[in-house]
Amino acid sequence: MQTTNIGIIGFGTVGSGTVRIILENSDLIKERTGIKLNIKGIADLDIKTDRGIKLPKGTLVSDANKLIEDPEIDIIIELIGGTGPAKDLILAAIDKGKHVVTANKALLATDGNELFSAAQTKGVYLGFEASVAGGIPIIKVLKEGLSANRILSVYGIINGTSNYILTRMSEEKVDFDAALKEAQELGYAEADPTFDIEGIDTAHKLALISSLVYGIPLSYEKIYCEGISKISTLDIEFAAELGYKIKLLAITKISDGDVEMRVHPTMVPVNYMIAKVDGVFNAIYVEGDAVGETLYYGRGAGDMPTGSAVVSDIIDIAMKKGSSYHDPLRPYGNARIKSIDDIESNYYFRFTALDKPGVLSRVSGILGSHGISIASVIQKGRREGEAVPLVVLTHKSRESNVKKAISEIDGLDVVSGSSVVMRVEGDED
Amino acid sequence: MQTTNIGIIGFGTVGSGTVRIILENSDLIKERTGIKLNIKGIADLDIKTDRGIKLPKGTLVSDANKLIEDPEIDIIIELIGGTGPAKDLILAAIDKGKHVVTANKALLATDGNELFSAAQTKGVYLGFEASVAGGIPIIKVLKEGLSANRILSVYGIINGTSNYILTRMSEEKVDFDAALKEAQELGYAEADPTFDIEGIDTAHKLALISSLVYGIPLSYEKIYCEGISKISTLDIEFAAELGYKIKLLAITKISDGDVEMRVHPTMVPVNYMIAKVDGVFNAIYVEGDAVGETLYYGRGAGDMPTGSAVVSDIIDIAMKKGSSYHDPLRPYGNARIKSIDDIESNYYFRFTALDKPGVLSRVSGILGSHGISIASVIQKGRREGEAVPLVVLTHKSRESNVKKAISEIDGLDVVSGSSVVMRVEGDED
Repeated sequence: MQTTNIGIIGFGTVGSGTVRIILENSDLIKERTGIKLNIKGIADLDIKTDRGIKLPKGTLVSDANKLIEDPEIDIIIELIGGTGPAKDLILAAIDKGKHVVTANKALLATDGNELFSAAQTKGVYLGFEASVAGGIPIIKVLKEGLSANRILSVYGIINGTSNYILTRMSEEKVDFDAALKEAQELGYAEADPTFDIEGIDTAHKLALISSLVYGIPLSYEKIYCEGISKISTLDIEFAAELGYKIKLLAITKISDGDVEMRVHPTMVPVNYMIAKVDGVFNAIYVEGDAVGETLYYGRGAGDMPTGSAVVSDIIDIAMKKGSSYHDPLRPYGNARIKSIDDIESNYYFRFTALDKPGVLSRVSGILGSHGISIASVIQKGRREGEAVPLVVLTHKSRESNVKKAISEIDGLDVVSGSSVVMRVEGDED
Repeated sequence: MQTTNIGIIGFGTVGSGTVRIILENSDLIKERTGIKLNIKGIADLDIKTDRGIKLPKGTLVSDANKLIEDPEIDIIIELIGGTGPAKDLILAAIDKGKHVVTANKALLATDGNELFSAAQTKGVYLGFEASVAGGIPIIKVLKEGLSANRILSVYGIINGTSNYILTRMSEEKVDFDAALKEAQELGYAEADPTFDIEGIDTAHKLALISSLVYGIPLSYEKIYCEGISKISTLDIEFAAELGYKIKLLAITKISDGDVEMRVHPTMVPVNYMIAKVDGVFNAIYVEGDAVGETLYYGRGAGDMPTGSAVVSDIIDIAMKKGSSYHDPLRPYGNARIKSIDDIESNYYFRFTALDKPGVLSRVSGILGSHGISIASVIQKGRREGEAVPLVVLTHKSRESNVKKAISEIDGLDVVSGSSVVMRVEGDED
């Protein structure tokens, strides 16, 4: 019987879930793996709040360094989150030769190259399954399960808050503000929801995915990122009419040898599996050259789902202690990252057309002059003197051309306000 | 750079896919893992057919033992399938201290206890990712990804042929025979389709899943198994009317501390993710006590998807050579296996009611006398003198009671023929 001693830093939501899982399932884990997980210490600034978990006296301490300095602790679990003290704590743990498990996507996205490199130098493992898509073991799937594949593309719904809001807007026809308020009341969205609704959290996770599947250094700062706060129910309705759902997708794929990395609201055909992922659930679609299309679905957040991922990392490390691991993010690829201007996609445009003659001909003329070919148009019954929406779906077009065309169209006297532009997935042509 | 020498036995569909992946992606795999996969030899009785793959001279041999005896070969890949010579070849390879990777679910389901035990005795690894759900890395997910969880239930669509047939019956309103014929023409079903359509292949895979998640010895012979060959379009239509799809599910779960293992057509609410899995695709829904609901989706068969799983096992073994593995099927649990008679489920019945007075009252009387409570009834417009379908959905009932009730009802003079019984998933009460 091998005992693995764990030190947990951060006794909040995920920390509590992790502790609960270890306490409740340690016998089962021992039977399955032969390893006894022992929580040697838990550090949190707040050592007073009752989390409803019974711990041996002295387990809970206020100084994280006590755990990092403890020579008996094999693995440090960092669950305080954020880009502040978490980094120093992880680096200190690595420096002491300890393996580290973290759920901290924000930190890894911005400082991961330094952290993974430090872990490699010290020969320790930095587990981060919990940092992407909560309970879905997507990191293991990408790193090990699909290790034989050249990954062609990954499309992920990896922020439950945004997906919940979009689902409510679509199903209940409520607007963004109402859906956000509901999400906040239910505890799905934070008081300051910026990270979730502006796609930042999604981009943090995408940086990790891209780096993993394409072997490139973490490049969070190069991700094109657009959130859902400007999505209107009108566009959701037009999308539905055209056979699409609007989802906030994290997209990474290889095109012309370059890596695309982008986060934006996307129109997805309703019959795609990923379009069927509703509410707070996450899903990641992965296409490999050998395996073809696959999809992984589950909860992306929460104490127990995220704890499940943390503990699976702990077990992995414990079982392979002293042997070679599947390497963490060790860049080998040298693919360029494609600028958003250079991507090609189908597009949805919604123009607000004034009631003047020749609108469609002028709009389509400008699109045509930029090489943008129209696939379909919806122009709803006009009412004298009022602005009406003019919706256009395009064939595959280049983003830079789209930008130019839209800017020209927005300057026309027959359209008012800013036009809506959304990228559309589906059979490309 | 570590080179891993591989010997492949069986150069058919999966063998060709495996070889192709290794040849095409070996550089990528080397970059990712530091391991060079080298195909030292391929054995097949047919060494003449051109598979369109260029191999160094002397690679292809007709005698599998040549590979097993080769001291330079680290891993033997068994891809001939079936329960004949495959077993002896695997045992011989294990005996020589070689790791083995196989896609042979039929053999593992029936002889797996002996094979895994032999592998354990010899300290070698017996990889079987490719034997369940083709390209979906479900074995890794269950064994490692969800290792922190007590698994509450697994529901799988793990036979693409059956799912294709059911999808066609549902979408095109063709009957079973026509859908089967189409599947055969497309190469999705074999000339003798028994294993696929009668649920045997599904049960082979379920045996592996159950053993893995509940730590019990492989118990294929204890699986209740019912295929799809008796499904009629009429039942598919009634299911749709009631808000369900009919899917051939492999089910294993813990109820009252016992393990259920069953394969049968099941009515699944259309809004469940697994109900949305159509065509030849596979999906496995897994519910863990910590992670909650998860689902894994992809192709369950084919040269490249299955090859993807084979090669991921090879890479796993190569990367961990000389270290401890996540144990293969090492039974630790002692849960009883529940008889089908003791399960509880909601049920769908379709009776063929003759045009006589009091049918519903007599049928419902018998159901009531066996403690079976009716949730809803559909009785369509009767036509004078003709038999009409009478459809009943029940609340949660015990299978043994259902059997008794149906047998009594089938004896009534007001019903004709045998009644249709199907288990129904959904919110239980």
